[in-house]
Amino acid sequence: MEHIASYIQEHQQRFINELIELLKIPSVSADSAYSQDVWNCAEAVQKSLQDAGCDVTEICETPGYPVVYGEKIIDVSLPTVLIYGHYDVQPADPLNLWDTEPFDPVIRNTEIHPEGAIFARGACDDKGQMYMHVKAVELMIATNQLPCNVKFMIEGEEEVGSANLSWFIERNHDKLKNDVILISDTGMIAKDVPSITTGLRGLSYVEVEVTGPNRDLHSGLYGGAVANPINILTKMIASLHDENNHITVPGFYDKVEELSAKERAAMAEAPFSLENYKKALDINDVYGEKGYSTNERNSIRPTLDVNGIWGGYIGEGAKTVIASKAYAKISMRLVPDQDWKEITELFQKHFESIAPEAVKVKVKPHHGGQAYVTPIDSMEYQAASKAYEETFGKTPIPQRSGGSIPIVALFEKELQSKTILMGFGLDSDAIHSPNEHFGVWNYLKGIETIPYFFKHFTELSKS
Amino acid sequence: MEHIASYIQEHQQRFINELIELLKIPSVSADSAYSQDVWNCAEAVQKSLQDAGCDVTEICETPGYPVVYGEKIIDVSLPTVLIYGHYDVQPADPLNLWDTEPFDPVIRNTEIHPEGAIFARGACDDKGQMYMHVKAVELMIATNQLPCNVKFMIEGEEEVGSANLSWFIERNHDKLKNDVILISDTGMIAKDVPSITTGLRGLSYVEVEVTGPNRDLHSGLYGGAVANPINILTKMIASLHDENNHITVPGFYDKVEELSAKERAAMAEAPFSLENYKKALDINDVYGEKGYSTNERNSIRPTLDVNGIWGGYIGEGAKTVIASKAYAKISMRLVPDQDWKEITELFQKHFESIAPEAVKVKVKPHHGGQAYVTPIDSMEYQAASKAYEETFGKTPIPQRSGGSIPIVALFEKELQSKTILMGFGLDSDAIHSPNEHFGVWNYLKGIETIPYFFKHFTELSKS
Repeated sequence: MEHIASYIQEHQQRFINELIELLKIPSVSADSAYSQDVWNCAEAVQKSLQDAGCDVTEICETPGYPVVYGEKIIDVSLPTVLIYGHYDVQPADPLNLWDTEPFDPVIRNTEIHPEGAIFARGACDDKGQMYMHVKAVELMIATNQLPCNVKFMIEGEEEVGSANLSWFIERNHDKLKNDVILISDTGMIAKDVPSITTGLRGLSYVEVEVTGPNRDLHSGLYGGAVANPINILTKMIASLHDENNHITVPGFYDKVEELSAKERAAMAEAPFSLENYKKALDINDVYGEKGYSTNERNSIRPTLDVNGIWGGYIGEGAKTVIASKAYAKISMRLVPDQDWKEITELFQKHFESIAPEAVKVKVKPHHGGQAYVTPIDSMEYQAASKAYEETFGKTPIPQRSGGSIPIVALFEKELQSKTILMGFGLDSDAIHSPNEHFGVWNYLKGIETIPYFFKHFTELSKS
Repeated sequence: MEHIASYIQEHQQRFINELIELLKIPSVSADSAYSQDVWNCAEAVQKSLQDAGCDVTEICETPGYPVVYGEKIIDVSLPTVLIYGHYDVQPADPLNLWDTEPFDPVIRNTEIHPEGAIFARGACDDKGQMYMHVKAVELMIATNQLPCNVKFMIEGEEEVGSANLSWFIERNHDKLKNDVILISDTGMIAKDVPSITTGLRGLSYVEVEVTGPNRDLHSGLYGGAVANPINILTKMIASLHDENNHITVPGFYDKVEELSAKERAAMAEAPFSLENYKKALDINDVYGEKGYSTNERNSIRPTLDVNGIWGGYIGEGAKTVIASKAYAKISMRLVPDQDWKEITELFQKHFESIAPEAVKVKVKPHHGGQAYVTPIDSMEYQAASKAYEETFGKTPIPQRSGGSIPIVALFEKELQSKTILMGFGLDSDAIHSPNEHFGVWNYLKGIETIPYFFKHFTELSKS
């Protein structure tokens, strides 16, 4: 393909500036205080699709935040690539741990990103990676190299479980009709080690509430005689893992896909340094399920993590109180063949069953999604692999990710098409963390690589 | 003694109004945001001592909040009663559980208080009970019935462990010289069952911090492979009690005073209904150390309670994060012969020892104090007992309290005098809880009873 490198060279500063403007919008879907910003962000994305050259763009309302749709149909007889991404972002807190304002993007150099990285909430997850596609399509249209049809479906509720995406897809099968779904919402192993994500974990997210006495009590007058809901909650949560860090919820592992020794050996070949891993996190040791490596623990094995816990007096100083209630947010990462709704029910049943008589327990299912695995011998995968070969000069490594993009399984079910996950982020980008960033090099490399996927996918589709 | 009932009758509305004004000052010692209010409260207390008729009043500075001192010396050859109380209050949160503003006192009738109760933070603990003494002394002076000398020592840091009281006492032995210390900062069994507190539990309050990775992490990409500090904290806290709810800290019980079967039998005679207790707290069952009754669990046995816990995302919605840090505030109630500093060290050593390699743990000792028991055959106790007999028409029941007034042990050590705990509050007054209140009847009954203690103590001292 001609002029790709030169076009990027010529327009890269504008590409960066446009992304920075998008990152200034605090589109936090989890916190209703940002509701207007989320809507504003949808409009900004729609405009960017118009500017990129889409013939049709639309803000599609849902019971929640809208889906931004766009399309450029050049020939109905040609294949159609549907690009999915999301314009909402994770909450930015804890704010005090950010070196700069989460919604006031700045470019700073880092050890891994000597060419500079854009620091802002959403820089990588997913505004930056989503916007790579907008710019790649602009490039292909501007240089008359768009080889097939393209559609965009950019949602605003990914960080809260894509609550209304299935509602939207079920009502728009025709509009969303496609031959392959392309997503950049994952990472790659390293800048010089391109990889394609072939597996994602499922998710079940719940909130639990333990109630003891009907009011906060003086811990001296009642301490020792009344169940303290915080102590009870810690006992209940602690009991969810055994001494080998296996999850104790009955039936939890019944449907877990067991990988063959061959598959595990292949995984073990991916470059990984446990020393660097520990150094990067400043931990003396890793911790997890007995019998599995670190890379297995965070990809092919299910987990149960407390994402938040609170109860009692958490202000300055001391308060000698026994709280009436204690709470926790708990999420389970699931692997292929575990059904998230079934797991949620198993958890709920078990958690309620282990509560002592002295307290009342509520389990509130929050959201979830299924795990996903894609075969590496498919035509879609081959097109992606070739694209990386052209821009990185090497064949990408297939990689299972520990993250979840629940809607991938949904797409396959509803739209009968495969999803390709071309991620250009790095583990060190600190997504979901303070100081999230996205390397300028990665951003531009993504814009460069995407058109080659379109090219090879179109060619392979013809043959 | 003459005119006591009539004087109270005549002035009761003013007594109530003055207390309400004092309760409007949010003197929360645990939260530095209220620092100025704590100082203002000290000045209000000083003025009330002047108005009551003290010859000398003083705001005595300390490294922390000041001690308000006052005295009325009528004859150095007569005995001196030192009244201790505190003008600081517990934090009011959780604010949303208050029916009315914590610092905007209102009088409402309740089932137990048909004559009305004053609802406000500090109404009972301890402004209301402290102010009973101010009004009782006013009464005795105004009616020329003060039989001995009286001193006041009202501090502003009781709710944060009386951090600087020992500093103050060590420097003021002469000023504080007395023959008995009188405190109203405890409760009685019921309005028709007067009781005198003969035992208090000690306290050790600590804050713990568990650190995992050096930043918040994406729970998908790292979940299962890295120690989650919240999960670890729950495991560590859960392990502090065994299956019989015995505390597992090595050496914790070594010095615990074991009561004789006779003493436990005597305790069991105090009127108590487990059904009413459970009903009042809306719990299906009590919970505590195996082998002990509810009244024993909250008075003669040591405890370990989490007073607060926090970590990770506790906002609205969901955040799939592994927190970098998790925290808890933990307090242990101690019984006679347990030394709070030794217990604090045992806890710290044990808690650090059970932390897995994968996390770092910090234990920050907060404050504490020794337990206390007073004999019921002493002259001081007999004087108090006779006072109740005059105003309640029945002999008070000696009672061990689960609460802690750490400075009582300090007084005995530093000032070589016994402390008498004449409490007029009720368990249902919700001290340290939302909707704290103090019965108007209890308030006035306290003002009526205190002068009789002065009378009998002076007479018994002479004989």
